[in-house]
Amino acid sequence: MRPLSGCGAIVLGLSVGLGLACATRAAEDDALLRDARRLFAPLPKDMATAERPITPALVELGRALFFDPRMSVDGTVSCARCHQPALYGGDALAKSHGNHDRLNARNAPTVLNTALQFKQHWTGNREDVEDQATKALLGAASYGNPSYDVPMARLKAIAGYQPLFRAAFPDASNPITPENWGRAIGAYERTLVSRSRFDEFLEGKRDALSASERAGLRAFIDTGCVTCHNGVGVGGGEFKKFGVVEDYWKATGSQETDEGRALDTKNPEDKFFFKVPILRNVAMTGPYFHDGSVITLEAAVRAMARVQLGAAPSDREVQDIVAFLGSLTGPLPDNFATAPALPAER
Amino acid sequence: MRPLSGCGAIVLGLSVGLGLACATRAAEDDALLRDARRLFAPLPKDMATAERPITPALVELGRALFFDPRMSVDGTVSCARCHQPALYGGDALAKSHGNHDRLNARNAPTVLNTALQFKQHWTGNREDVEDQATKALLGAASYGNPSYDVPMARLKAIAGYQPLFRAAFPDASNPITPENWGRAIGAYERTLVSRSRFDEFLEGKRDALSASERAGLRAFIDTGCVTCHNGVGVGGGEFKKFGVVEDYWKATGSQETDEGRALDTKNPEDKFFFKVPILRNVAMTGPYFHDGSVITLEAAVRAMARVQLGAAPSDREVQDIVAFLGSLTGPLPDNFATAPALPAER
Repeated sequence: MRPLSGCGAIVLGLSVGLGLACATRAAEDDALLRDARRLFAPLPKDMATAERPITPALVELGRALFFDPRMSVDGTVSCARCHQPALYGGDALAKSHGNHDRLNARNAPTVLNTALQFKQHWTGNREDVEDQATKALLGAASYGNPSYDVPMARLKAIAGYQPLFRAAFPDASNPITPENWGRAIGAYERTLVSRSRFDEFLEGKRDALSASERAGLRAFIDTGCVTCHNGVGVGGGEFKKFGVVEDYWKATGSQETDEGRALDTKNPEDKFFFKVPILRNVAMTGPYFHDGSVITLEAAVRAMARVQLGAAPSDREVQDIVAFLGSLTGPLPDNFATAPALPAER
Repeated sequence: MRPLSGCGAIVLGLSVGLGLACATRAAEDDALLRDARRLFAPLPKDMATAERPITPALVELGRALFFDPRMSVDGTVSCARCHQPALYGGDALAKSHGNHDRLNARNAPTVLNTALQFKQHWTGNREDVEDQATKALLGAASYGNPSYDVPMARLKAIAGYQPLFRAAFPDASNPITPENWGRAIGAYERTLVSRSRFDEFLEGKRDALSASERAGLRAFIDTGCVTCHNGVGVGGGEFKKFGVVEDYWKATGSQETDEGRALDTKNPEDKFFFKVPILRNVAMTGPYFHDGSVITLEAAVRAMARVQLGAAPSDREVQDIVAFLGSLTGPLPDNFATAPALPAER
């Protein structure tokens, strides 16, 4: 006989005490769902906006460009080099290696769900995914091109791209431009949504999360993680100082300090400010933080609790929070897991 | 009314001349199919052998390892770095860049159908795909590990690999070994078959090839390309000197000469000998030759005719041969186009 393992199994003849415990747990679950709905939101089907609409032709072109390394200065860098499907849109490196082994300044965040963030890059110095994709063509440690002319000439030399650009930009007389490169890749990225069990929970399916995951969500809320990690992305909506209670490197063991947004703005008040990263799929995208200084999610949770909140959650609470964060892992979107066959050079 | 465009359209009342022409063409097609069947063979469903059997568990493990860069010395090199699905199992570079931007000595051939070749690598210095995969772990310009201990320790640190190795090697007490790394990746590669319209033709479906492709196949046979490019891979069965009639670099414009197999054997008779590459999917895997010195397939065909055969085929013949070679392109196998989700580090 299957052991009793939950309130759903209550039948006539069980003790009043168990009945009360179950009633309490049901009330707790109600409160948890209510709190979660106040703080988070389920992922949408895609991340198009009125200003950044998507069409199938734009997405098809953008998907090809995303996987194509031939527009980088040494032919080795595509978006997919640092945002690999097999690694959930990251590259499992502390900091990405770009063209000619040049080291990027910071860790490559996942490309999944990234378009819903209020800005792009760790310090928000890219307005949106379109801006990020276009400027990556010139990034010293990414595509490494000396000017936009070089990658545009490479693109024009691959005949198979011409019909794709014409279809994606039917009104343009010269559609192969750096701006349209970003538009197309951005449109593709706006389709890279990975809904998870947490979305089902938010939509009302309480048993989409296990008891440990629900306990973790409660701890995530009550410990204060949600102060920054909230909204549809569970983060990605604002800048915050990394290291509020203590310098962050005391917990991360970082070898170098990074002043974050202050390097862009030159404003001392922005020192150590970073964009709060989204936590969607975080269990699959280590190592953690802007410098990849922490390898395990458990250690990352402890470090954040310490330097941001001055908290020291128990082992059980950390385990539960890690379990909850695991519920943010969704399946890889098909049009990301599956590479397109790129046009050959003729 | 649809114009008459072939012998299938012969009806009563057409001239005897057209009838004779059609009879001649049918006889030519019969002869072509007969010749082709004598020289080539359709691709099998997989490339397992009695000595190298495959199981679903071996293939699943091998597929994960193929896409995982974490066992390379700098974390950037997986098999998929130089054998990219989007680029038909090559990387579109003249010579591949490996760990820390180290340059490989030769062009990366496609991994599709490669297991059917009699040896691996351009000079055949790897016995089979298993041997190639294992030794790549130590290759200076590929994975770059100083010893096998380093990547095996990395593998053991990723907990998610342990059940995959146990399932793939159920009788082994310590299944995580360099030999088993090669066995698993080899088993996966033995599934990477991409059958094309040419296989349908060989199986008797004459209209699987267009008139130009059939003319190209005829020219490919009659010009003498089949002397070396024959069998199931349309090559891949023997060593031959590159540059029989003339030094190869006179046609390829190569900046450096490569003595090929003589570098391995130290035998002067092997100077400029290379393994005859398979031509399956060749239209998708430029640039061409061991040094990627030629960009277009048309130029590669002309170069081969000149230096191997002393032939100068007409523009029409070259076009037809290129068309025929295009018929060797098959769809990307699903388990290659689609990346697996790799186990995260815990």
